[in-house]
Amino acid sequence: MAPDFSRQHGLDKLLAPASIAIVGASDNPDKIGGRPIHYMRRHGYTGTLYPINPQRTQVQGERTWPNLDALPAAPDLAIVAVAGEQAVQAVNRCAELGVAAAIVISAGFSETGAEGRAQQDAMTARARAAGMRIVGPNSQGLANFGNGAIACFSTMFLEIEPADGPVAVISQSGGMSAMVYGLLRQRGLGVRHVHATGNEADVTVADLACAVLRDPEVRIVLLYLESLQDVGALAHAAALARERGVPLVAVKSGRSEAGARAAASHTGAMASEDRVVDAYFEHHGILRARDPHELVRIAELALRSPLPQGPRVVVVSNSGASCVLASDAAIEHGLQIAPLADPTQRELVNRLPGYATTTNPIDITAALLSNNGLFGQVLPVIADDPAADMFLIDIPVAGRGYDVGTFAADTAAFAQASTKPVVVVAWQDNVAAAFRAQGVAVYADEQQATRAMAALHRLHQWQARNAGHRHALAHRDSSTSTQTNPESTTTDAFGSLHSRSSFLSESQSLALLSRYGLTVADHTCCTDADAAVAAWRAIDAPVALKACSARLPHKSEHGLVTLGLNDECTLRDAFDRQAKTLAALGIDDATWIVARMQDGLHECALGMRHDPVFGPVIMIGSGGKYVEAMQDVALLLPPFSAEDVIEKLQGLRIGTLLAGVRGDPPADIAAFARQAVQLGDCALAANGKLASIDINPVLVRAQGQGAIALDALIELTTTPDPENP
Amino acid sequence: MAPDFSRQHGLDKLLAPASIAIVGASDNPDKIGGRPIHYMRRHGYTGTLYPINPQRTQVQGERTWPNLDALPAAPDLAIVAVAGEQAVQAVNRCAELGVAAAIVISAGFSETGAEGRAQQDAMTARARAAGMRIVGPNSQGLANFGNGAIACFSTMFLEIEPADGPVAVISQSGGMSAMVYGLLRQRGLGVRHVHATGNEADVTVADLACAVLRDPEVRIVLLYLESLQDVGALAHAAALARERGVPLVAVKSGRSEAGARAAASHTGAMASEDRVVDAYFEHHGILRARDPHELVRIAELALRSPLPQGPRVVVVSNSGASCVLASDAAIEHGLQIAPLADPTQRELVNRLPGYATTTNPIDITAALLSNNGLFGQVLPVIADDPAADMFLIDIPVAGRGYDVGTFAADTAAFAQASTKPVVVVAWQDNVAAAFRAQGVAVYADEQQATRAMAALHRLHQWQARNAGHRHALAHRDSSTSTQTNPESTTTDAFGSLHSRSSFLSESQSLALLSRYGLTVADHTCCTDADAAVAAWRAIDAPVALKACSARLPHKSEHGLVTLGLNDECTLRDAFDRQAKTLAALGIDDATWIVARMQDGLHECALGMRHDPVFGPVIMIGSGGKYVEAMQDVALLLPPFSAEDVIEKLQGLRIGTLLAGVRGDPPADIAAFARQAVQLGDCALAANGKLASIDINPVLVRAQGQGAIALDALIELTTTPDPENP
Repeated sequence: MAPDFSRQHGLDKLLAPASIAIVGASDNPDKIGGRPIHYMRRHGYTGTLYPINPQRTQVQGERTWPNLDALPAAPDLAIVAVAGEQAVQAVNRCAELGVAAAIVISAGFSETGAEGRAQQDAMTARARAAGMRIVGPNSQGLANFGNGAIACFSTMFLEIEPADGPVAVISQSGGMSAMVYGLLRQRGLGVRHVHATGNEADVTVADLACAVLRDPEVRIVLLYLESLQDVGALAHAAALARERGVPLVAVKSGRSEAGARAAASHTGAMASEDRVVDAYFEHHGILRARDPHELVRIAELALRSPLPQGPRVVVVSNSGASCVLASDAAIEHGLQIAPLADPTQRELVNRLPGYATTTNPIDITAALLSNNGLFGQVLPVIADDPAADMFLIDIPVAGRGYDVGTFAADTAAFAQASTKPVVVVAWQDNVAAAFRAQGVAVYADEQQATRAMAALHRLHQWQARNAGHRHALAHRDSSTSTQTNPESTTTDAFGSLHSRSSFLSESQSLALLSRYGLTVADHTCCTDADAAVAAWRAIDAPVALKACSARLPHKSEHGLVTLGLNDECTLRDAFDRQAKTLAALGIDDATWIVARMQDGLHECALGMRHDPVFGPVIMIGSGGKYVEAMQDVALLLPPFSAEDVIEKLQGLRIGTLLAGVRGDPPADIAAFARQAVQLGDCALAANGKLASIDINPVLVRAQGQGAIALDALIELTTTPDPENP
Repeated sequence: MAPDFSRQHGLDKLLAPASIAIVGASDNPDKIGGRPIHYMRRHGYTGTLYPINPQRTQVQGERTWPNLDALPAAPDLAIVAVAGEQAVQAVNRCAELGVAAAIVISAGFSETGAEGRAQQDAMTARARAAGMRIVGPNSQGLANFGNGAIACFSTMFLEIEPADGPVAVISQSGGMSAMVYGLLRQRGLGVRHVHATGNEADVTVADLACAVLRDPEVRIVLLYLESLQDVGALAHAAALARERGVPLVAVKSGRSEAGARAAASHTGAMASEDRVVDAYFEHHGILRARDPHELVRIAELALRSPLPQGPRVVVVSNSGASCVLASDAAIEHGLQIAPLADPTQRELVNRLPGYATTTNPIDITAALLSNNGLFGQVLPVIADDPAADMFLIDIPVAGRGYDVGTFAADTAAFAQASTKPVVVVAWQDNVAAAFRAQGVAVYADEQQATRAMAALHRLHQWQARNAGHRHALAHRDSSTSTQTNPESTTTDAFGSLHSRSSFLSESQSLALLSRYGLTVADHTCCTDADAAVAAWRAIDAPVALKACSARLPHKSEHGLVTLGLNDECTLRDAFDRQAKTLAALGIDDATWIVARMQDGLHECALGMRHDPVFGPVIMIGSGGKYVEAMQDVALLLPPFSAEDVIEKLQGLRIGTLLAGVRGDPPADIAAFARQAVQLGDCALAANGKLASIDINPVLVRAQGQGAIALDALIELTTTPDPENP
């Protein structure tokens, strides 16, 4: 995941070009080749425009050039707005002439099938060889309202007037870049960057995210993604965002199978398992929004408020019913409603009528009608109450007799003086408009408001996490990574792997995990019955006998596991039975494991899958026979800390059991968490050589008594056989 | 739950009064005593108004009377808009004069505490004695736009112009009745009834729901509730609604503990466990909306569309990204995206450009820009496709060049001809307005649209359920109910119950359940070791020995359960140990159960709690030691069918296991469902005598081999001791 800085080559000229050629320039501002010229003239682009049109001497009042070769100098940027073969020729000529970057608006490439993809690949290869960057093809273009470089043909900038501001929007889909822009502007938020990457032959959303994060005016970056393939570059963008304290918020659509199918036919997006996407975003501190509507709601709060430093919400409303609704919504989204401190309540009693409610939520009642200054009088009283990490003001009823302007002004004055978020729910459009005009974040309902508040609280928690143990992790990561230290002994563990199938046997699997510090069950490997009996005698306690072969990964399904053996006769019987079963299956490479029977409190599981996009993904959760059916698991991307594991466990049902219920002692969660961390280290060190690891059960004992892997199955990554693909 | 028809006494006069007295009538239309007069003059009330004001001869152009006694006749309705003691006097005088109903707007009663409650109770008792109904006190009033009887002081009818229509809104909170009205009118929906019940001293939301359901013009009834106490009357309203095919949709706020606390201080609402509320609503076919915003969104779809007959959605959009977002949202809410039939796809290929997507979702692309008739051309092709139970049209981008009027007209024409719901998601306000003007249901985003669609699909499923096995249930219910048949033998089972504590012992509990047809473990009760040994010999297999006393409900925590005994010596040892433990605990009434050890596939649980509001609630789900911690349970209100149980099980994790995973055979779900139905019958027959029943585990065996209750604990309802409350 080391950042590839060369990927930023040329992007400065893409976002701030000193000169722009428009191939296919039109005099008609409503044509694709005309609209960027119209926009750039309108929004004060101060660089040089080179409209290219062999038929006209000027378009929209600008002098034209007959072709690229006629230009006095190679422009920083070329907008290619001609179709088909003409577009390919123009891009190729740009590359030859030394143009820094081209935005290819033209469609008909990889989105149409194999032939289009081949054409796109060839065009991209020629550009790359010449050092020219390509946006698109099939891109709506890029727009930078900071300098008027609007290389984009969206109609949306005509529908809703642009205003420069702190937001950057970057989208694979052109439609969504425009719609997010539109939703932001409807909320009165200024937008600087509106970029669409289309087919992403070269420049990706992640590349542009890195680029806009170098613009110091950008205070939030919003992404719309239908696929996640460029995860290294996106991780780099996330690191830049964290460094600058800029929220990076993303929609990754195609969450469902049906949605992913639709995304595949829209942008050819490759499907990723959605919970892995969640784990990836969380790992990198990228907030995930459910859809573009929520993306914009989160942006409004992030821009208009500081981050909430805790989960406690104080609700203030002129309606008792709204107090109830807002409390329900806050709790639903994981926030808290805590009682106000006694002195605060006493002061509220002084300021509010007797029938008002002075706990939390605070119902100031229709008394607001006779005293329009009540919001202004109440808010300062609760400003510093320990129950208040943020404030939610809910105004459903505000008709005749209500001075909404005063409410808004009082609230805005309070919000500006406060270090805590202030959020308004306004049921009526005129009320929303009054508050928004004062720069206060406004939502149409309690669900929308509290979801946004919860998202920003999560961001605060992640920032706090970064300030803490993540630093230690980053350090540890670099010291154990096999990429940076190819001759470490840990690498040898994988270099020497060999197996007749794509699986390791249980004994090989346990041995490998043991080398990574995981505690595995005390066991002896044997190849005959006498050795098995000797092993049992040495253990001197009930044992399990398990026949292991890399060719039989699911041995229990074949009756090759016998438990609780504690006398020679039964042990020999079991051995014979298993040997017969193996013979019948044609397995000749089996060894036997004799393992001490173990007691513990709970059966957990650990797992790893090597995802083709995200790399190793670690699974923690409930174990036992029904691990898949119970779906009580969480995912983490390594490296992570034991604290991360414990936090995830707390969200699972097994977490409740591990804490100790029904008279059980608390379990050794710390030991299980350490095993998970070690598994993560093992997976990173394997560097793609392991396809999957299943450790089930991991027996977790009482606090202080450890956790122990009883069974394990490791699958190796198979390189496709070139003879027999 | 037999309907109390006398509760409807006088409500006709409340909703359609021939004459209305206004106590505290004001000349100022902005005063509480003035606004109803203003509204009634404005909205064409044709009955007689009797403004009462001793200081003036007329108000707002209407002749006044000095007091109630001066009226020429007792009015059907009196609006009491004076404060404090004056209000009480006016209500009392109304009762004496034979007024049919009074709406008490005045506040200061039960919502202020014990003294106010006493005053309210006394006033209500006098009214009841005289046969007069009371709405309120602390009510915003009732409004009927069908006849202009607007006995309500809300400002909202000034803010947004009323229009009569098919919607009835009934709310405990005045503010919410007005806000729901406002949200409905913003969506262009006509509203006839807007009623607020305030403190509900007499008339409840449920009473008014029954009353408005007798108005044939009412096509949907929307409720806002903060407490559920009048569940019998609400069940009657639900039955009326089902009979008429009118959707009954309700918000019950106070879902969270914090919300319930806020509701308690708002309307004195008593908290109910929220999942019991869900079970009650589902039992009666009342759709639950999360908040008033969703209530109104569901209403829009219910009024503008037929009910969806299945879960399959066809998505059509001019944006590929919206296709993805809409598919994700549909799946998230339990709907389905199925592929279109081949002939449909072929026909779409003919009508759409080559780069459009002709599966489902259908991306008609920006080709819409050059052919504004595309929606009209595409919709008829998919009208009868088997993948289409409903249609979702998503229009994010529609600026310059798009003829939104044509889209809306084409869509409306299609919707009117279709028997399937057509829903539009419009990201831009002008697009929404164009569709709404054509009578099409419109939502701001995919989440809102698909949640409403899923809600109405659920309603359809409930209606189908009603048409089927519910009839059989209703019949069975009346034949087993102890209320209607107090001398049945089933009653005797409870009449003879006695115990030294509030619990029955395990053997008593199992015996009672067995009498209700539940299969319980084969066991023998004994009082000494010799009898226990004899019992084991008779069983001739491993047994469990359990010491039972009604005074020790949780025997396993005291080590009074010993499993797997299969020889005399060990059995006697275990008996002696248990006897010593009992002696140490001072228990002298123990009996022993000797029960055959049982094998089975899965441990389930059944339970019953007698809820003070809802009566018996049956719990089904995963069993075993961790039943509470695992929270894998569902609730049902009896009577219910085995099909209902199986449907609920399918939503649980244990349902997955019972179906057979990891090589397990399918379990005998039908037998478990029968046990649940029998438990429901038992709970109904007990008629409140049993506080709770816990049956855990219920061992479920392979299909055809039954389910068996291994342990049970029944708690009796204790009547509070009047000496020692």
